[in-house]
Amino acid sequence: MTEETIHQILKFRDDRDWKQFHNPKDLAISISLEAAELLEIFQWSGEDVSDKGKTEKIKEELADVLNYCVLMADVCGFDIDEIVQEKIKINSEKYPVEKAKGNSNKYDKL
Amino acid sequence: MTEETIHQILKFRDDRDWKQFHNPKDLAISISLEAAELLEIFQWSGEDVSDKGKTEKIKEELADVLNYCVLMADVCGFDIDEIVQEKIKINSEKYPVEKAKGNSNKYDKL
Amino acid sequence: MTEETIHQILKFRDDRDWKQFHNPKDLAISISLEAAELLEIFQWSGEDVSDKGKTEKIKEELADVLNYCVLMADVCGFDIDEIVQEKIKINSEKYPVEKAKGNSNKYDKL
Amino acid sequence: MTEETIHQILKFRDDRDWKQFHNPKDLAISISLEAAELLEIFQWSGEDVSDKGKTEKIKEELADVLNYCVLMADVCGFDIDEIVQEKIKINSEKYPVEKAKGNSNKYDKL
Repeated sequence: MTEETIHQILKFRDDRDWKQFHNPKDLAISISLEAAELLEIFQWSGEDVSDKGKTEKIKEELADVLNYCVLMADVCGFDIDEIVQEKIKINSEKYPVEKAKGNSNKYDKL
Repeated sequence: MTEETIHQILKFRDDRDWKQFHNPKDLAISISLEAAELLEIFQWSGEDVSDKGKTEKIKEELADVLNYCVLMADVCGFDIDEIVQEKIKINSEKYPVEKAKGNSNKYDKL
Repeated sequence: MTEETIHQILKFRDDRDWKQFHNPKDLAISISLEAAELLEIFQWSGEDVSDKGKTEKIKEELADVLNYCVLMADVCGFDIDEIVQEKIKINSEKYPVEKAKGNSNKYDKL
Repeated sequence: MTEETIHQILKFRDDRDWKQFHNPKDLAISISLEAAELLEIFQWSGEDVSDKGKTEKIKEELADVLNYCVLMADVCGFDIDEIVQEKIKINSEKYPVEKAKGNSNKYDKL
């Protein structure tokens, strides 16, 4: 995500004076709610994303999740690249290539 | 998020040959599950993020949500900046500044 | 669910003096978190529940969701039978048999 | 929950011939989605349930969660009282009264 996109997200919030509502707990709730709206697209539906209407819906809901993640990172003072790269390091130890390759089990079942 | 971070996310997946498991439905489930792990940090806990242990945990779980969002975008062929900027446009119409300013109500209650 | 089961749920809570933590918002969070733990069993896994280990896990997580539902109803002063039967009436109007039969669409798509 | 309520839930499903859609994975998704709709009532809102409109909404969404729990138990062949009472036994060992009393920590932090 470019700096420009992050800037647009924060500007949208600040234009509406919404930062006052953005405590981490309610932002975590919001991420969960948007994730549920994304998931709802797949309720009863199998795994396909072939039809056009669904693809547009997935784009919107995934964007909403990303949007709230950026807002949460901002409120908590996190740098997104830093926390993601840091987590990749942690996951690399939990899921070493030789054990995890082609295996969808959780790390404690590898 | 830089191209480099996105590259690291996809490389982590490809090194483990995990793309075979990544259908959109299970990725949507995964985003929901990681969002729940993030939310769990705030269960019974009020809104503070003051203590250090919690901040580290929030970083990790937020990174997990972002990680799966990138994986979903990749599998669906979405450009993250494009979908987020597109959604900001939609939201700008749903939440016009003059109505939404300082108001946390949903668009249908503005 | 029998009165005896509900009694056991509330006794478990009261023996531990936990009602003080049970505000509706945190109970709603708890229901979501337990629902996610139930859902996690099906992550990457298809729809089968054949293997024994999984069935035991589903029982436990479904029980956790039910447990928190009872706790929430108690704190809010709801009678479970009353609210469920009331909702069935509402749903009967949203999903009339002649339109909904054999159709998994949401009511606004019937 | 009385036998009569459970009977009404299953009759509602069978009148609409919906059992064909009710695989455990999609039911677990459904429980998560309804839990999110319940949680949404508390987004940005603090912990109060004082106003009447909200109470009605909580009743409906909590009823939806309970409804899908009963449907899941039915499809998986579980007896609700049995699984809940069984889980209370497990929790009694994880959260012994003497350690857990007045303490909202998770069992691994007691």
